[in-house]
Amino acid sequence: MDKRVDNFCAGPCTLPFSVLEDVRDELINFANTGMSIIEDSHRSPSYDAIHHETLNLFRNLANVPEDFAVLFLQGGATLQFAQVPLNLLSENQKSGYINTGSWADKALTDAKKIANTYEAWSGLQEGFIRTPNCNEITIQPNTRYIHMTSNETINGIRFPTYPDVDIPLVADMSSDLLSRPIDWSRFDLIYGGIQKNLGPAGVTVVVVRRSRLGTHGRNLPSYLDYQTHDDAHSLMNTPPMFSIYVMNKVLNWMAEVGGVQEFETRATKRSALIYETIDQSNEWYRSPVDKKCRSHMNVIFHLPSKVLEKKFIDQAIELGMVNLKGHRNVGGIRASIYNAMQIESVERLAEFMNAYKKSNS
Amino acid sequence: MDKRVDNFCAGPCTLPFSVLEDVRDELINFANTGMSIIEDSHRSPSYDAIHHETLNLFRNLANVPEDFAVLFLQGGATLQFAQVPLNLLSENQKSGYINTGSWADKALTDAKKIANTYEAWSGLQEGFIRTPNCNEITIQPNTRYIHMTSNETINGIRFPTYPDVDIPLVADMSSDLLSRPIDWSRFDLIYGGIQKNLGPAGVTVVVVRRSRLGTHGRNLPSYLDYQTHDDAHSLMNTPPMFSIYVMNKVLNWMAEVGGVQEFETRATKRSALIYETIDQSNEWYRSPVDKKCRSHMNVIFHLPSKVLEKKFIDQAIELGMVNLKGHRNVGGIRASIYNAMQIESVERLAEFMNAYKKSNS
Repeated sequence: MDKRVDNFCAGPCTLPFSVLEDVRDELINFANTGMSIIEDSHRSPSYDAIHHETLNLFRNLANVPEDFAVLFLQGGATLQFAQVPLNLLSENQKSGYINTGSWADKALTDAKKIANTYEAWSGLQEGFIRTPNCNEITIQPNTRYIHMTSNETINGIRFPTYPDVDIPLVADMSSDLLSRPIDWSRFDLIYGGIQKNLGPAGVTVVVVRRSRLGTHGRNLPSYLDYQTHDDAHSLMNTPPMFSIYVMNKVLNWMAEVGGVQEFETRATKRSALIYETIDQSNEWYRSPVDKKCRSHMNVIFHLPSKVLEKKFIDQAIELGMVNLKGHRNVGGIRASIYNAMQIESVERLAEFMNAYKKSNS
Repeated sequence: MDKRVDNFCAGPCTLPFSVLEDVRDELINFANTGMSIIEDSHRSPSYDAIHHETLNLFRNLANVPEDFAVLFLQGGATLQFAQVPLNLLSENQKSGYINTGSWADKALTDAKKIANTYEAWSGLQEGFIRTPNCNEITIQPNTRYIHMTSNETINGIRFPTYPDVDIPLVADMSSDLLSRPIDWSRFDLIYGGIQKNLGPAGVTVVVVRRSRLGTHGRNLPSYLDYQTHDDAHSLMNTPPMFSIYVMNKVLNWMAEVGGVQEFETRATKRSALIYETIDQSNEWYRSPVDKKCRSHMNVIFHLPSKVLEKKFIDQAIELGMVNLKGHRNVGGIRASIYNAMQIESVERLAEFMNAYKKSNS
């Protein structure tokens, strides 16, 4: 394929073309060092400047208060499923997990291995088509935090607002990081892999309220202890430098374009375009999701038959629109439209949806 | 700096120029997909082919037997300092750690937090100038494994041979991975970050004897359990795709050039060139290291004074030879010469050493 595709992948995701061009142009000789960024020392002034700028860019874009640490870690959200309870819970504390689907369930399963953990709500019976209202969430005594997954990529649902519980929230924001503002007063910690909204795979951002560090009473090994990473500005050991370097470029691009507010507007506009196409199709396209919980990042829909769905995916590929196949647990179509997805790509998809319906109904 | 430097960095390290050119040329459009490798899905056929080829390349180059799993993980060797004892030791088993310097000590410190762990030998009193002879290693009853660091980057020492103890070895091979053959009959597990000999930062290779998996009796969270990674061919969650992709190119290059045997020959030749220059300098250049334990990867030496050392480093930079400053714990000069270091770079360094001595003694 010579031309650039419209990549609706659920992650890793499409990135700004200008970022890719920059990375290519700098690949052999980074910052006039006579070497590639992938050969540079993580203790060099050239890398150090990028590293600290990236930490600050994230802090500024997400409006992270001073009393929170921003950490760049490895192992994906999956390692955080263990690292969060290890760092936030002492032996006699509990946490409650809101089960909104596949990712929330994984977080819950790992947390149960670490500490006393319970399911504070479950959408399983309903088929994970919505997130709970605040009054549906059960909170047991002595609960240290409530864990939520702000957006579920597989089922295409999100929390339209952060639940107004009276204990701290912890959130896996992997799939909607920096696509909407975060009310830090409600959170003790948020985490997310950057490979959807912010860059290539290989970095997990953790933002944690510093006063909660060191309260676990455990003798944690160095990598699993947030404190060691905060003390070393995420340079305790060799960080995933290339992914941080690309994230730097993506965050700079985001800041130039208008910051999180602009990306929230774009996400609303992009997703509305597809949801409207679905809603105006007389149920030819069907969204399985509760309207008020529809994800702005992952739009899931079904066609009248599996045969039509397969043909839809195949024809889309011919038109340069790729990775539209829904997750195997859910089926149907999934259009993932993260921060760097251009509105033109979504317009092409909406046009195709209308044309395809016309020729097949 | 317009021209390419001779990069003697202790890690991340210099890479083959042909690999950098390939990465640059493919960066915008990977494998004719119409997208970058850093935008590709880790579940795509295009990435999947790279991923499995890389696992196989490592297995073939390192001559890994069928009954060992090859895993690509994240978090560096530092996460392995915890993950190794979590996976290999049950509650009532012990491990012994050979303390040969900074990295061994870090592994030991973390292992002590996980399980009953003791120091099987220490080079601290002597200033970490050598690795032990086999008969110096203390092995307590009920020891499950002896941990060793095959090469210490900071002090520039290595195990010339793997110690002939009668219980399994576990080795941190971060700084000499695939620079010499591994006698798998002696090891239960080896691990190492790839950012010295095999690619960019972001991937840790773990090779573990499969019969040892699942013997720990712990309820491990998913990321920390080797079994989950082996079951998923290191695709349990989004892997550090770009680093694996570059490693693929480095391993292909290594295979073409002649494999591990060729790289052992090259390492011997490269390091001998510098050690001979030191030894023929009438103690003007001095190596602090026991001759038989001299590292083939990191050559440490001192000059008659700190002033002369600083000037040496500065003049070398002017000649395009960078990152020669020794680690702050040791001082002096450190020339790190990993797999992709060209003999011409080392020849330039040796010539400069001779010329510098001549003009300053």
